[in-house]
This record gives sequence, C-alpha cells and structure tokens, in this order.
Amino acid sequence: MKKILFATTALVMTAGAAAAADVAVRGDARMGVLYDGNEWGFTSRARVQFNLSGETDGGLTFGGSFRVNDEGGANTGDGRRLASEGSRGTVFIAGPFGRLAMGAPAGAAEAAVGDLHEVGLTGLGFYNEVNYLTGDGDGIRGPWNPTVLYSYTFGDVTFYASASDGRDRGGRVENPALSTGSEDYGVGLAWAAGDFKIAAGFESSQVTNLVGDPAVLTTYGRQEQWVLGGDATFGDFTLRAIYANGDRSVAAGTFDYEEYGISGSATFDLITVTAFARETRQDTATGRNTNTYYGLGGRYDLGGGAALVGGIGYRDLADGTDDTYGDFGVTFRF
Amino acid sequence: MKKILFATTALVMTAGAAAAADVAVRGDARMGVLYDGNEWGFTSRARVQFNLSGETDGGLTFGGSFRVNDEGGANTGDGRRLASEGSRGTVFIAGPFGRLAMGAPAGAAEAAVGDLHEVGLTGLGFYNEVNYLTGDGDGIRGPWNPTVLYSYTFGDVTFYASASDGRDRGGRVENPALSTGSEDYGVGLAWAAGDFKIAAGFESSQVTNLVGDPAVLTTYGRQEQWVLGGDATFGDFTLRAIYANGDRSVAAGTFDYEEYGISGSATFDLITVTAFARETRQDTATGRNTNTYYGLGGRYDLGGGAALVGGIGYRDLADGTDDTYGDFGVTFRF
Amino acid sequence: MKKILFATTALVMTAGAAAAADVAVRGDARMGVLYDGNEWGFTSRARVQFNLSGETDGGLTFGGSFRVNDEGGANTGDGRRLASEGSRGTVFIAGPFGRLAMGAPAGAAEAAVGDLHEVGLTGLGFYNEVNYLTGDGDGIRGPWNPTVLYSYTFGDVTFYASASDGRDRGGRVENPALSTGSEDYGVGLAWAAGDFKIAAGFESSQVTNLVGDPAVLTTYGRQEQWVLGGDATFGDFTLRAIYANGDRSVAAGTFDYEEYGISGSATFDLITVTAFARETRQDTATGRNTNTYYGLGGRYDLGGGAALVGGIGYRDLADGTDDTYGDFGVTFRF
Repeated sequence: MKKILFATTALVMTAGAAAAADVAVRGDARMGVLYDGNEWGFTSRARVQFNLSGETDGGLTFGGSFRVNDEGGANTGDGRRLASEGSRGTVFIAGPFGRLAMGAPAGAAEAAVGDLHEVGLTGLGFYNEVNYLTGDGDGIRGPWNPTVLYSYTFGDVTFYASASDGRDRGGRVENPALSTGSEDYGVGLAWAAGDFKIAAGFESSQVTNLVGDPAVLTTYGRQEQWVLGGDATFGDFTLRAIYANGDRSVAAGTFDYEEYGISGSATFDLITVTAFARETRQDTATGRNTNTYYGLGGRYDLGGGAALVGGIGYRDLADGTDDTYGDFGVTFRF
Repeated sequence: MKKILFATTALVMTAGAAAAADVAVRGDARMGVLYDGNEWGFTSRARVQFNLSGETDGGLTFGGSFRVNDEGGANTGDGRRLASEGSRGTVFIAGPFGRLAMGAPAGAAEAAVGDLHEVGLTGLGFYNEVNYLTGDGDGIRGPWNPTVLYSYTFGDVTFYASASDGRDRGGRVENPALSTGSEDYGVGLAWAAGDFKIAAGFESSQVTNLVGDPAVLTTYGRQEQWVLGGDATFGDFTLRAIYANGDRSVAAGTFDYEEYGISGSATFDLITVTAFARETRQDTATGRNTNTYYGLGGRYDLGGGAALVGGIGYRDLADGTDDTYGDFGVTFRF
Repeated sequence: MKKILFATTALVMTAGAAAAADVAVRGDARMGVLYDGNEWGFTSRARVQFNLSGETDGGLTFGGSFRVNDEGGANTGDGRRLASEGSRGTVFIAGPFGRLAMGAPAGAAEAAVGDLHEVGLTGLGFYNEVNYLTGDGDGIRGPWNPTVLYSYTFGDVTFYASASDGRDRGGRVENPALSTGSEDYGVGLAWAAGDFKIAAGFESSQVTNLVGDPAVLTTYGRQEQWVLGGDATFGDFTLRAIYANGDRSVAAGTFDYEEYGISGSATFDLITVTAFARETRQDTATGRNTNTYYGLGGRYDLGGGAALVGGIGYRDLADGTDDTYGDFGVTFRF
C-alpha cells in the first residue's frame, strides 16, 4: 500500500506544471496454496486499483479509489457492488472542515477502532475482523449504496461519524430504489498519542428481513453495539485489544452479543510474526453460542514489493465445527 | 473531459521517440445528495476511462475509448454491454476519407443534432435528452452490437451516417447471434459557422418484440423520425432548440410522435447556470399523451478539476405523475 | 504484444531510482465486418490489459497480467472467470529454479506444443486451436480456479508441468468449494534449436458430469491425450505441424480421438499470409465423427500499431454442417 506510482508524475516533474488531478495505477497479486480445513488447493489472484487525487484552487484535496474488480461482480451476488454506482470504492473531499468520504468506506466505529491483526496469505477467513454492524462491506452485512463517513482531527483526537440512507440502488432519479436497505449510523472517537491509541465507537443498524412470498422487506427494529479498542507499540512490537458489546439479530430475534480479542505483531529485520485470538458470544433463544478463533502468521520480506507469507488458523464454533486451516505463498505489490 | 493525461507522455518527451500508440487513463468522481421526488438519499461514484490513440505511418489516426464499468455489468441488465464485445465504448479510424467509428457511438441523428443542456450533479433522469431511435445507449432502446457511425466534414458542414446490423451478440463465428436485434440506420447533417449551428437528422428503426411462449422475436415494421436543432452563442451565453417529429411504437401500435425543447447555458466567471424545458407528445390508441420536463442547474468551479454542482427538476407526466426532484454535491475530474 | 508502455518508466528514467514494481497499461482494438456463414454483421472491440512486473532484492522476477474484461463477465457464463479470484489472468515468479505461474496459464501440453497459426480479424472461430484437455480456457473445458504451470529451461530444452486442484471457487477459507471441478495434470517438453522446434505433451483430465436432479457432480474416470508438434522456419516462412492422439469424452462415453493439422505463415515486406488445415476424428458409440477446418488469412501492416486484417474459413463437420465464413477490418495495438 505504501508504494503509489503516479502515472503522470514524470509529466509533472519534466514540465514543472501543477497537474492537480491524477490517476495512479497500482497493482497487487499473490499465489500459493491453501488448506481450508478439508483439503489443499491452489490460490492466486491479480488486481489493479485506481487512485484518483486532486486539489482545488482553494487548497481542498479530493480524490477517490476503487479496484477493477469492484466494477462488476457477475453472478457472485456482488452484482450491485459497483464503484460507478457508489456501492464500492470511495470518493472524498478534505479541507479545514475535515474529511468527507462516500461510497463504501468503513463505518465510523470501524474507522475509529479497526480490526485485529490479519494473518496469512489469503486472510484465512478474516476471523481477525470485528463484527461491525454498519458499513463493513466484508463483514456480515451487505454493502449499502453509498455509505458516508465524516472525520475531523483536532490535535491527538479524531472524531468519526457515518450514515447510510437505507436506500439500496438509490441515487438516480430514473432508477429509484429497487429495494429498501437498512438505515445505519455510527460515531467513533480515537485518541492517539505517541505509541498509544485508545478508541471507542457506537453503531446502530436497522434490522430488516425479506418475509413471505412474494417477499416483502420488513423492518423489525434496531440492533446496536459499542466497540472499544486500544493499541500499544513498543519498538518493533505492536499489541492490540478489542471489546464489543451490544445486541445482534439472528433468525429468532435480537439478543445480547459480546466479542473480544487480542492481537500482536513483531518485526525482526525482514521477518514479521503476527498472531490473534478472538471470541464471540451470542445469546440465542436456546442458549449462548460461543465461537473462538486463533491465527498465527509469518512474513519474510523479499524486497522489491515481494514477500513470502503464510499462516495457520484454528476455529472452534458453537455448531461443533472444529477446524485447522492454513496457507502459504508469495505476495506482490506493484 | 478537457484534461487528458497520457501515461506515456513523459516517455515520449524524455526519449524524443515517436511512440505513436498510447493508453491514457482518465477518471471522474462525484458525491452528494439526491431527492428523487419521494425522499433524500446519498449518491456517489468513481470511474476510470481508458483513451486509446495512435497514428499509422500513412497519417491515419485511430483509437478508441471505454470506461472500466463498461466491461461487465453484472445483473443489472447490462450484462451484454461490454466494450470487449463492441456493445460499449468506441473504436475509430480517421483520415482524408472521414471518420469511421464502431462500438456504441451515438447514431447519426444524435451525433448531428445532440441533446439539450444537462442539469444537476447526477443528470436528474436525463430528461434533457432527445428520444433518439437509434444508437442511443442511454435512451429508450437497448444497445446493439455494434453500431457504426461514419462522419465527414467539408468546410462548415459535417455529414453523418450510422447503421446497426440487427444482430445482437453477433460478431463471432463460434457464437452466432443469440437473438436478432433491430436493423437501424440514420443520417445527419450539421452546418456550423462561427457562433451558429443548424443540424438535421433522420433515423429509421425496426420495431421488434418478443411474442408468445417460448418467446419469438417478431418484426412489425419500421418507426422513423426527423430531428432538427439549432445553436446560437452570444459571448458566454448559449441557446439551443430542438424539434423531433415522426412515429414511435408503443404496445398498442405505432403512432405519431412529436417532441420539442429549448435550453440555455450562461457562464459568469466561475458560475455556470443551465436550464431546459422539453415536451413530448405521443399519440396512442386512447388519445394523446403529453409529458413535460423542466430543469435548472448551477455549477461553481472550484479549480483543479473540482466543482460544486446542483440542480432541480420538475416533470408532469401523462400518467398523472407530478414530481419535483433535485441534487447537490461535488464533481471531480482527474 | 511487442509494444509495452510502462506508466512509470519516465519516473524511473528521470529519478534514476530502481522502481522495481510497475503496472504497465496496454490496449488493443479492432473493427470490421464478419460473415458467420449465414449473414454479414459488424464486429468491433476495445480492450485494456494490465501488465504487472517487479524484481526482488535477490534477483527473482515476478509479475502478472490480466485484461479489464477478465474482471467480471456478467451473464455470459463467464461469471466465475475473475483475475481477482485466480480464474483469469496470471501471476508468476521466476528465478534459477524456473518459472512458476498461477491463475489461467495454458496447460503444460499447450505451453510446449501450442496451436496452429490463427487467421482473420476475429480468429474466425479459432478452429486453428488444438483441443487441449487441460488449462485451455478458450477450449472445450471450463477454466479451473486456478491452474499452476511450472517451466524450466536448460539449454535448448524447456520442460513444462501443470496441474489444477479440481476445486472450483476454492482458495478461500470462508468460501469453500461451491462445486468440485476436475483434477487435471499435464507435462510437456520442447526442444528448440535455431530454426527448428520439436515439442511433445501429455495431459490427463478427470471426466466429471452433473447427474440427476438435484444435480450431483459425478466423476467417471480420466481422459488422456498425447500431443506432438514441430516448427520449421525458413527465412520469412514458418511451417508448423501438430498431431494429437488419445481418448476424449462425449455424452455416450470415452472414445478414441485423433487430431492433426498443418499451418504456415509467410511475410513479404508489409504483407503476411497465413493458412491452416486441421482435422479431428472422434470415435463415438455410433461411428467415427470427422470434422475438417481450413483457414486463409492476410495482414497488411499500416505502421504505428495498425494493420488491415482479413480471413476466410471453411468447415466440414460430421453433423453435416458445411460453412464458409470470413471477416475483414483493421486491428490496433496501443
């Protein structure tokens, strides 16, 4: 992510002109093997992302970004997730008033608190990620169209607020909402000073469900949750802890939910080792469901944007599933 | 649209070599709010377009262009609209013989006469656009695969001719037509001298419909229309008028159709104000249907490719619909 | 294919820094007419490909490539063919140990032996291509997710080995195989010395089929095939011959299969003429099916990446089909 190559940088450098608006083209790829708890398989991918950036005459910065594969998702159920319709990618404008982003940014709670450290070549199920209720495109909720995230930093403190309008496929007069989504909102606050960071977030999400045949989208109420997180960095070692508490909805209703986790990352020269442990506790009509996840990962930097990456994971689920999985391979950044 | 950044320009400039063929990467984005006549919502998008350009040894210019989101449209009914199959984007070659474009260019009548001025951040339903019969990808007809547009300019006059072969998804021996589309053609003529432009177009389109179960594509005849337009520019003020007359097809048959509109755009330093009024009159088996559309828009240039843009619109439809809608936000060009 | 423009080359040249990892943006387009054996139609397309490349500190090269239209294939049955999920495009790493590629590379037999010369603007059905059993995305088998191709060159000899894991849509812990594909493997060997090349390949593929309702993926056994090929170049003239022998599966079972072909290409200044003849013989429960294909093509180089290209083809199929088809137009490279 650190290496951003501007396609027009050389033009600027050579001509000395202030070409304010640029499109940067960046890529990443990976290849390796994956054990999914059942059998081994090959895994690979190649992606390209566009980073748009510019500046107004008055000094406001603006831009956006999206990946090529977020422009058209075919039959995978991602059909609506298009950057050209605000369901993927982001657009932003920033200035003295703060930063306003639209599209598919993280919700305010996620932007403030974040997730545990990720392990493995492929993310290994992304069980390091907190179950955020709003704006978490890769989480348990679908993406809305679009989400808005506002952030403002004063000194060591950053404030976040996010909302979605609950209107799926909205945003066009000639194509009004095909269905009504969930009206979500969230707020977050992060305090970062030197090697320490403390953050908190609150989020609230409408509970909707398709009921009957023909299906009618029905709203049952709201689910809400608090999320707390802290980071501490000691030289090349970073520790992170997260706690969430609220109520979440399952088929039988809305019940208490609790989640906590810890993760760490340590870098020794070219080698980085990462680990996490996370547990979720969901009350249900028939009792408490507890899911536990562990992950351990390593990375060896090959230089030039390449690295050897691998990880192993373990999950112990309330439904009796008890899996060990892992992956190994090379990742590239371009 | 004016800002085209060539990814390889710097290579050319540095090396002094004639790299004839280039791929330019250009982007645009927007974010804001939209009132669709019923409720408010957020709207945003980010897009990237590729502009291909080159020149033969004999001095012919060639190229093409398409957007990333025109390469795969998922489940939105745009599945067939692929630049890689000629249903979106354009390819062209130009020389002393004129300019020949294929893919999804405008039809000849639209290329000659054009549309009324657009208003708003999102286009607000694009009711400023004339109902062209052929090659109007965003209009009432689907895109064919591909459309051909030929144009030739001699002095102040440009001649246009367009055609589609009526073969949907054709263009491959191993994948013959999945269905048969409409054989359309059109001609146009535009005379532009100084601050004035007068243009006329004629177009003819097959009327096809899926009939019975299993559905069979049936051809009923042809619908045809004349379109006239005029432009006048007085300093920073541009006025445009459009008139169309022909017959158009609805479920009950093919009936007389008439359409007229007027629009204007005025620029005062950083501010541009735009407005249009347009009315369509469609005879039907049960009488005449009249739809009226108004739009008013404003734009404030922030510099660097950014602008504040907003608009309001009103439509009074034959079906009794009577809507006011509007949008506001920022647009970016990269 | 020869013209690769690096978006960041100028940055490297100007700054003198070793920017190891690049994204190159390359395009191609074509427009013309096609006769599919039944009627004439227009054909056009525009495409962009990303070429990713880099080098580790230890001197290993790595990279990948995919086309924009291989990131989302909509309702054409290509929905799963995504470079971002390893079903299209390629990723590779290369060094003293050889070259390892993943994604959708050719299988080992195809990589070693290749196809006959292609003719025409559009490929005219690609009947010049050998019916490879594995890893042939444009052949009779679907793409698997992903294929692995390893190659190693010692002197004039290159060894190839390929495999797929038989797990469709695998490669993610949270999204285990939606269905089980075919476990394929192949090996190939090519000896190239001066103007001559001789190559051989063997490949083996599982035969799977959806049986019953609800459909269950059933494995029947394996089909296997040998492929031999030779090339000879005399100045501007190249001759190629191919022979394949094995068993292939049709609905009624697995039967003997034989295929052979010859092709040639001759270049006279700006003009290139290409031709091929190919025959396939498939035993079936009811007798032997013989299909014969001929193609003849021409190309006139216009310079700057443009060329006039046309071809005619003829096929005489076992089902009684007897077609002549052809195309003509311009192709562009950017």
